[in-house]
Amino acid sequence: MITVYGMSMSGNCYKLRLLLEQLGRDYRWVEIDSARGGTCTPEFLAKNPNGKVPVMELEDGRVLAESNAILCWLAEGAQGPHGNFLPDDAWLKAQALSWLFFEQYSHEPYIAVARFIRGWTPADSPRRADLPRLRERGHQALAVMERHLQSADWFSGQGYGIADIALFAYTHCAADGGFDLAAYPRIGDWLARVRATPGFVPMPDLDDEAVARLALPD
Amino acid sequence: MITVYGMSMSGNCYKLRLLLEQLGRDYRWVEIDSARGGTCTPEFLAKNPNGKVPVMELEDGRVLAESNAILCWLAEGAQGPHGNFLPDDAWLKAQALSWLFFEQYSHEPYIAVARFIRGWTPADSPRRADLPRLRERGHQALAVMERHLQSADWFSGQGYGIADIALFAYTHCAADGGFDLAAYPRIGDWLARVRATPGFVPMPDLDDEAVARLALPD
Repeated sequence: MITVYGMSMSGNCYKLRLLLEQLGRDYRWVEIDSARGGTCTPEFLAKNPNGKVPVMELEDGRVLAESNAILCWLAEGAQGPHGNFLPDDAWLKAQALSWLFFEQYSHEPYIAVARFIRGWTPADSPRRADLPRLRERGHQALAVMERHLQSADWFSGQGYGIADIALFAYTHCAADGGFDLAAYPRIGDWLARVRATPGFVPMPDLDDEAVARLALPD
Repeated sequence: MITVYGMSMSGNCYKLRLLLEQLGRDYRWVEIDSARGGTCTPEFLAKNPNGKVPVMELEDGRVLAESNAILCWLAEGAQGPHGNFLPDDAWLKAQALSWLFFEQYSHEPYIAVARFIRGWTPADSPRRADLPRLRERGHQALAVMERHLQSADWFSGQGYGIADIALFAYTHCAADGGFDLAAYPRIGDWLARVRATPGFVPMPDLDDEAVARLALPD
């Protein structure tokens, strides 16, 4: 059985939970509180010297880091509701990979980081000064997604797959970072399509402290 | 024949040039000056709505964005000097993908961006205030690479491959961003191994303006 070291409220970690549940895979989840130093312990750094969750561990102790690389490994040859979670066709697979890299370079660093600053840093954190710039760049990413959805239903080729999972992870909770998705109707429809896929599980509920912080103005 | 839309002095674009040369593939290179708005034209945005180079175009007009996704597509089944440029073995392939995501999330945003700010923004740019933070995070990435090289010669599995190409692109010119690599002897040895691979081509020379800016103190 595989083990996931993850923080339940992290979208990067939720990606793995969602795919594992939809694949019907057994797994063990070890909760790591990365907001309180859980990724900085010697034990954790021995698994991932880069100090980030999630990390996946095989029974023989081999480990794999980077959420989207773990999605690729889990999806290898795995059947989804509309075909493989990662297309076999080389061109469609390359397009799905392109969205996975887009997610980590042009989407997560703005939309997820804005959410993190609002929900997991003190109300007087100097990082809150970054929020306007993060919003501007995050909206650029959402606009790119909205445009893609003019001519496609999914980001993973002809059906739902791991590029959808990766982009869903932080898009569905973009409001936590102060993003209003009302201007992106196609994204709203796509989020609903993802939620309707077989075996879908939502992100676990936030703890009370995060909920209270997210309710505050910037 | 494929066409690459790229900026020659960009490491993300150089990745494709290096792999294409080592594969002996014919290609057409269309120079895009992203530092002077070349990625913001309607023609370019029609190819990549995310407004970034490189973009690869097939003869039939289909396009693929994201440097590391393009590397994956070009490497699919292609033989390198030590085996495939992307391992066939699922686990080794996942590890190579993990380094590709590491490069785009934990390396490029610090090491490449510090280089960009020093070489391609005015000497009085307010972005120069970001340099100390970028250096700190960039050194963390270099330390992760140095540690990996304690027990491995390459980042792409058992031999040279696309994860090495992706990491080489901005590591070899990290000094442009103000990073001293003297503290990373294993990285120095690995850079030499990459330069010794068959068909290696260096990044094109910088123009005089960039050279002059990079010679200035921060």
